[in-house]
Amino acid sequence: MWRIIRAIEMPDERFIEQVKAMACDVFGTVVDWRSSIIEEGERLGLAKELRIEWGNFADRWRAGYLPALDRVRKGELPWTNLDGLHRLILDSLLVDFGITGLSESEKEDFNRLWHRLKPWPDSVSGLTRLKKKYVIATLSNGNVALLTNMAKRADLPWDCILSAELIKRYKPDREVYQMSSELLGLRNEEVMMVASHPGDLRAAAAVGLRTALILRPLEYGPNRTQPAENTPPFDVVAQDLNDLARQFGL
Amino acid sequence: MWRIIRAIEMPDERFIEQVKAMACDVFGTVVDWRSSIIEEGERLGLAKELRIEWGNFADRWRAGYLPALDRVRKGELPWTNLDGLHRLILDSLLVDFGITGLSESEKEDFNRLWHRLKPWPDSVSGLTRLKKKYVIATLSNGNVALLTNMAKRADLPWDCILSAELIKRYKPDREVYQMSSELLGLRNEEVMMVASHPGDLRAAAAVGLRTALILRPLEYGPNRTQPAENTPPFDVVAQDLNDLARQFGL
Repeated sequence: MWRIIRAIEMPDERFIEQVKAMACDVFGTVVDWRSSIIEEGERLGLAKELRIEWGNFADRWRAGYLPALDRVRKGELPWTNLDGLHRLILDSLLVDFGITGLSESEKEDFNRLWHRLKPWPDSVSGLTRLKKKYVIATLSNGNVALLTNMAKRADLPWDCILSAELIKRYKPDREVYQMSSELLGLRNEEVMMVASHPGDLRAAAAVGLRTALILRPLEYGPNRTQPAENTPPFDVVAQDLNDLARQFGL
Repeated sequence: MWRIIRAIEMPDERFIEQVKAMACDVFGTVVDWRSSIIEEGERLGLAKELRIEWGNFADRWRAGYLPALDRVRKGELPWTNLDGLHRLILDSLLVDFGITGLSESEKEDFNRLWHRLKPWPDSVSGLTRLKKKYVIATLSNGNVALLTNMAKRADLPWDCILSAELIKRYKPDREVYQMSSELLGLRNEEVMMVASHPGDLRAAAAVGLRTALILRPLEYGPNRTQPAENTPPFDVVAQDLNDLARQFGL
């Protein structure tokens, strides 16, 4: 008697041999920004006796991100790193949510919670496995200090911190993806962009990077449906970073 | 009976609390370029039946470094990363030493020995101790790929790879030192430049960074005298990176 079992997905062998480095998106792909913001918000709320729906606060903070990037990308704002953009959004949220009585240093510390975001449960183990064979780098719109502090706190074992800040352009501008292969001394097709957002991967593919989609159905909270996967198809689709390592034989 | 023992040097406590990050020179300070080049040279010499005094070859390669940087710094050469400058120097050394019969890929691989330089015996343990409390970053004229590959191979536990390449200016241009504190999100006095070369530290001090001199009497080989320490005095002088960690209470 034979039973049919589901074939385990594995990428093409020649393709695996070609990839030398993984350039990883961070917010959503490696760290769970939403739960981390809720946790820090609840702590602030207790200390300051605030009654805030922190899930909503987190979603609004993150929702301000793309419009803020776009203002920089279109030249409406001069170059401002992500700490600066997060602070602009925070200042307006404090007004919207009626949060008063925070000192400047309390606001600054709360803004820096983005340096303290927590990884998904598979992130440290998955990246550690990938690091055995590949150069693993961030490729994030987060600024260098944010990514460095986050990695140190969360034990993310990056070989190299690459950030939009280094070129003062934000993803999905093509220059950011191009920068990753140039700084790593590799050809574009030797670098794989790893991200949970199809738009990030489409932009990476447009300059010739390989692409791996990491499914993060909980990124926007427990009751949100994952947006449908968009074309073009990605080189690899993985359930999480451990699954990505497994698909690469690690 | 009492015997006088030599006082153990320790920096001022307030000063220790102020420092948040160590920005480390790499060639000479963390890795032993001379022995590493000799070792790779001898291997090449055996394979290709070359009779070369590799210590001399290593010294000549390194001696070509400062003039090459200066050509870029003065604008005589367009921006060229350190892999590119090493290759320019190598090509002229191959002629001077009468080395023929290397294919392009053999030359390229030999040039990349700079990605494979070996750390001093104290480097990995000293940096690992420093990393417990401080952000540890490279601040080197080496390009990002060189520093990343070197760290991966030698287990150098950097939190962040900072390179002259990121700003397309070479040390000792002041912009390189200034970049380190800006990218790390710190004030200049919160960053300590760690280097075995007084000139590097003088330039760092001029922009307000703290300075730690690491003594590396063997950098230029076993029979060279260490150049006398120059003024200004440095904030810390350490025998090696473990001694630096000890002086910072780690």
